[in-house]
Amino acid sequence: MNSTKNLPGGVTAAVGFQAGTASAGIKYKMKRDIALIYSTVPAVAAGVFTTNRVKAAPVLVSMRRIAGGKAQAIVVNSGNANACNGEQGEQDALTMASTAAGALGISEEHVLVASTGVIGQKMPMGKVLPGILEAAGGMNPEGGAMAAEAIMTTDTVPKEAVRQIDVGGKKVTVGGMAKGSGMIHPNMATLLCFITTDAAISSACLNRALKHAVSNSFNLITVDRDTSTNDMAIVLANGIAGNPEIVGEGDDYLLFRDALTDVCISLAIDLARDGEGATKLIQVEVRNALTKEDARLAARAVAGSSLVKAAIFGRDANWGRVLCAAGYSGANFEPGQVDIFLGDEQVAQKGCSLEFSEERALDILDNDTVKVILDFNMGKSGATAWGCDLTYDYVRINGDYRT
Amino acid sequence: MNSTKNLPGGVTAAVGFQAGTASAGIKYKMKRDIALIYSTVPAVAAGVFTTNRVKAAPVLVSMRRIAGGKAQAIVVNSGNANACNGEQGEQDALTMASTAAGALGISEEHVLVASTGVIGQKMPMGKVLPGILEAAGGMNPEGGAMAAEAIMTTDTVPKEAVRQIDVGGKKVTVGGMAKGSGMIHPNMATLLCFITTDAAISSACLNRALKHAVSNSFNLITVDRDTSTNDMAIVLANGIAGNPEIVGEGDDYLLFRDALTDVCISLAIDLARDGEGATKLIQVEVRNALTKEDARLAARAVAGSSLVKAAIFGRDANWGRVLCAAGYSGANFEPGQVDIFLGDEQVAQKGCSLEFSEERALDILDNDTVKVILDFNMGKSGATAWGCDLTYDYVRINGDYRT
Repeated sequence: MNSTKNLPGGVTAAVGFQAGTASAGIKYKMKRDIALIYSTVPAVAAGVFTTNRVKAAPVLVSMRRIAGGKAQAIVVNSGNANACNGEQGEQDALTMASTAAGALGISEEHVLVASTGVIGQKMPMGKVLPGILEAAGGMNPEGGAMAAEAIMTTDTVPKEAVRQIDVGGKKVTVGGMAKGSGMIHPNMATLLCFITTDAAISSACLNRALKHAVSNSFNLITVDRDTSTNDMAIVLANGIAGNPEIVGEGDDYLLFRDALTDVCISLAIDLARDGEGATKLIQVEVRNALTKEDARLAARAVAGSSLVKAAIFGRDANWGRVLCAAGYSGANFEPGQVDIFLGDEQVAQKGCSLEFSEERALDILDNDTVKVILDFNMGKSGATAWGCDLTYDYVRINGDYRT
Repeated sequence: MNSTKNLPGGVTAAVGFQAGTASAGIKYKMKRDIALIYSTVPAVAAGVFTTNRVKAAPVLVSMRRIAGGKAQAIVVNSGNANACNGEQGEQDALTMASTAAGALGISEEHVLVASTGVIGQKMPMGKVLPGILEAAGGMNPEGGAMAAEAIMTTDTVPKEAVRQIDVGGKKVTVGGMAKGSGMIHPNMATLLCFITTDAAISSACLNRALKHAVSNSFNLITVDRDTSTNDMAIVLANGIAGNPEIVGEGDDYLLFRDALTDVCISLAIDLARDGEGATKLIQVEVRNALTKEDARLAARAVAGSSLVKAAIFGRDANWGRVLCAAGYSGANFEPGQVDIFLGDEQVAQKGCSLEFSEERALDILDNDTVKVILDFNMGKSGATAWGCDLTYDYVRINGDYRT
């Protein structure tokens, strides 16, 4: 897997996709806060949604619609989550979709809706609807970058990724964008992510590939262990690439699935690195666990531990907290068998302290990316999870987000 | 339940208990870091221990010994957790116990051991053993307060609580002390807690009462969702009060159980309020849930949410985060039925926003104790959990604890 973003275009990189944006004044003055993603033809659609019992109105609407397996557009706003708004919230989400449908001249049922921002405040529809019309008026096959910007909330940088593969002699592009900085914890879908592809692929294959991709990317990142009410990851496949339709579990499927997974991993790493207040990406790799699930549980717990995150922020090679977090993760392992590494410096052996160079450890902790490796020395399974350090700025950002 | 500490004495309040302390230089110069608790006669003993798969050496030793049901002394050190030290760690824990036993002239098997502090550093036995001898030489029936001080790590204040009840015409005293400020999350036992009582009570009743008490106190507090490797709660009952032995589940048992629970709740609240970097105690009450477990799950999730904690630190009445945390807690409830209150100010009704006085909310958030109430409007069960706000100081404390 290569996590470099070697191609431009994001959500409009694939053939037949366009995006438009507007600054409607939902977020604050002059910031883009509406994005409209559009496929020139109806696309096969798949999605995963937050497991939070409290689901925002747009999540409920999009879950219902995607069950039909087709979509042609996604309307997204930032600045207001349209969550905890009762009947009115759902009505507003439907109105957003019908407004977009009318402006684009497509079926209302083929428009998905997503929102992100503050929970529990009514949607300012007087601003939202003109914004949607403006965005629809500016649809552009090179609009991906602006769309990635329009969906940001506390994100400091937009997140895009694009991969290309060859399927049956045809160039297939998979491109996407994501947002999310706080209220991020792996649980099905943990953020907003929109991916488009010109691949021809069956609905069953697209769903299966998306679940695989999300499970190995967004479900392995954590910022603050809070699962949002608004998360969703959606993929639209419009078939314009003209490849032989991917229908089975053959090589073409695996090729597509891995490209989709690679796009998701790239976006997930970008999200973790841009976690609220973060100064460092923390990459936790568990090796030689008995099962994949053990590896995942331990990697996620270490990446999510407030004490580990604060220690890494403070450049403290406190490996005891790493082993402690693995210990309460629910993963099966023998504490007395575990080797721990910070980057390439071994700091613990068989669960015990080891003489190591504090100076070397400090150098490693100075990097933008800090790798923590736990070798369980038990089996053959592994997993990698991503998180970020816990900083003063996380507290500052979340102490006065709403006010 | 009355959570005021109306009696002095802590762990030496009950008749027949003494405590001694020493400043052995494990923590840092001139701070007490060894405590020895002693009963003049062997006592019935019960304990609960951390569920972390990584258990410190003193936890393993004390778990084995308490299975015998009797103990006469507990030796505790702060400054070093004696965790992740392998065979040597266990040997050191045993040597601590045998040194205490020798100095007190009691059976080695009747000495329990507890440690708290940094993980993964060898015990400085050259300092620890002279400290134990010094503590044993200064045993004192009024030593409770100094012992409470000796077990502190990042705690800013010692925690003690005492209750008295009348059992069969005899005055029975239950007194205890606890420490814990970070790495605190409800999971069986979440900290160090030592309770003594002069009650005459069977081993079975004492075990049952302790489980009830811990389940309703320490297991309902959270500071940072990190379950420590060293947690334990131990109660010693020496029978000197001379009450008719509590053996069944009658009124005397309930009276004793509730006094023990009350001591634990008082200590638990003190721990939550003194969470690392905390400026406020957060009390989360869930009312009218379908089951007690639903209420517990939701109350704990809200009290533990980094976003809720940061919002309360920032005096932001962001009730959406409260409902969001309940939503991912695993509790069964209908989001559209939930009423939310900050103190006595209702901020959400049936899961939707409500016009409320921001000024009044700000006043409530200015208090040392912030009460958050969720009414599920579904059943008749309730639970209360306690936590603290997330502040810059939490990050500062944990960014350079070890260095």
